[in-house]
Amino acid sequence: MDALKITMPALGIDLGGTKIRAAAVLDNKILGEPRQIPTPNGPENIVRAILDLIISFQGQYILKGIGIATAGIINTETGEVIGATGNLPGWSGTPLKLVIEKSTLIPVHVENDANAAAFGEACARNLRDKQCVCVITLGTGIGGGLLIDGKLFRGAHWGAGEVGHSRISLGNKRLCTCGLFDCWEAYGSGRGMVATARDILQGLTPGQTPLVEMAPELTTRQIVQAAQKNDIVAQRALNVWHEHVAIGIVNLAHILDPDVFVLTGGLAECVDFELLHEMVVDRCMVRIGENMNIQKSELDGLAGIVGAAQLIMDAISERAK
Amino acid sequence: MDALKITMPALGIDLGGTKIRAAAVLDNKILGEPRQIPTPNGPENIVRAILDLIISFQGQYILKGIGIATAGIINTETGEVIGATGNLPGWSGTPLKLVIEKSTLIPVHVENDANAAAFGEACARNLRDKQCVCVITLGTGIGGGLLIDGKLFRGAHWGAGEVGHSRISLGNKRLCTCGLFDCWEAYGSGRGMVATARDILQGLTPGQTPLVEMAPELTTRQIVQAAQKNDIVAQRALNVWHEHVAIGIVNLAHILDPDVFVLTGGLAECVDFELLHEMVVDRCMVRIGENMNIQKSELDGLAGIVGAAQLIMDAISERAK
Repeated sequence: MDALKITMPALGIDLGGTKIRAAAVLDNKILGEPRQIPTPNGPENIVRAILDLIISFQGQYILKGIGIATAGIINTETGEVIGATGNLPGWSGTPLKLVIEKSTLIPVHVENDANAAAFGEACARNLRDKQCVCVITLGTGIGGGLLIDGKLFRGAHWGAGEVGHSRISLGNKRLCTCGLFDCWEAYGSGRGMVATARDILQGLTPGQTPLVEMAPELTTRQIVQAAQKNDIVAQRALNVWHEHVAIGIVNLAHILDPDVFVLTGGLAECVDFELLHEMVVDRCMVRIGENMNIQKSELDGLAGIVGAAQLIMDAISERAK
Repeated sequence: MDALKITMPALGIDLGGTKIRAAAVLDNKILGEPRQIPTPNGPENIVRAILDLIISFQGQYILKGIGIATAGIINTETGEVIGATGNLPGWSGTPLKLVIEKSTLIPVHVENDANAAAFGEACARNLRDKQCVCVITLGTGIGGGLLIDGKLFRGAHWGAGEVGHSRISLGNKRLCTCGLFDCWEAYGSGRGMVATARDILQGLTPGQTPLVEMAPELTTRQIVQAAQKNDIVAQRALNVWHEHVAIGIVNLAHILDPDVFVLTGGLAECVDFELLHEMVVDRCMVRIGENMNIQKSELDGLAGIVGAAQLIMDAISERAK
């Protein structure tokens, strides 16, 4: 047995709508390079792809456990996907833990991806001794994960942390992809930023901003780049987007009064943290605002992998007690 | 020693802006009649009034402990009022636990009133084995208390449960008494119901509804009574108020996914629970809505007294361990 085989890491797997990423994790740190494959179509192909990924790591490590972060609502006791997600059609009903454990004979923990990311952030930042940590994933949508007393808070029916679908407006103004109106996600996500920019662009001419011609296919990247080039329309859209992001944080702060917020996800890169902090504090009761602590993830999108791996490590320790 | 003296209840005291109420509580049940006095002006007079109330109960019971529910933010470890409330000027900074314990030599627990009410509801309904209970106080304002795993969740800086000051609208449409805009409280409280009715009454004539002439001094009671007499404007205002109440519940449901919501406070009497349930479920993701459980308090405004008394009983048991 060579030296590498003696370290017994967990494998963290992050299953998203477009790609599956995996890495070996030991003590909250990623070992070597993460591997990535495109997400195939259909539950059976996804399971096969996950098994292939696991085998590829088994050449290098003796895996102590496997943690899988996936979109959807997860019963973490049975490891079953109990709630569908538009990004993974047919995924609901998959007894993922059972299937992977049966094939690999390695202990498996399955977790909702936003929860896994929250746990990863908390582990990597030594925040597990805090009373309450709110991790918000800003991407195409908005996800959330809550830690209370160092443990994931999953709610009474595994549905807690769907913070993106709290409402921030009256009057059915903007339809969310979930089918509801005026969700925080419809304003504060990447899609929300684009929708806000399109609202502002209405009635403007290409002479006023080049964004007008991009409007039908507009992306968050184009908006951010235009703002950097001092396009005032793009700057206005980004500013309003910050306000929208702020309001969801304000709401969570009044409800939970957490020790810290951590923002992660692709769009966390676009956040001006100084501006956001100011906007949040301005909209909070003084004694809530004066304790406001909003941090940026430093895990570069790998929080789900780290969290999933640490969750199975914890489950194994718990069982050994 | 007479028979009555052998029972050792706790005294629960609920200190509000207009009145102080107290009752002896044993095993989550009120013994005899609660007593009530008007709230005097200024911290010193309030403390003296509380001490007089305690003495009046000591003639009848040997008090095992004293639980005090009060408006404001409370550090429950020190029993100090650390956050001001408009209803009790000068109250912030009062070391209430210390002062009352020193005078009475009886153990004291001080709690925020919405938290105490939440704890009382959970105790009286045997909900302490639930994962998450949300108690919402609908009155002049909106308060909230959260129980997680049977214990009050107070947040990292004693500020959790300020659910009334989460925002439900964009655009600075309605000013809340806290100084912020578009708080849930500005729409879903009694004041919110009146404001909504006034909005609807604008441009109407006394011939269309008698509420027009009441508008300057309109009360929730008048709106509810008019609605019962089939005044369609009042019915419209009540319906919109239900929508506003629903949205705050929808938001808490997506964030926390609780086992149960309990509505308490004077305005819980005005809630059509069937209508509210339907409105909430309509605005929730399916898997959140399908578990929706909204109940009405049965403690008739005495939840704070019961909760405060049970909190000191628990603290005494905890210390004895």
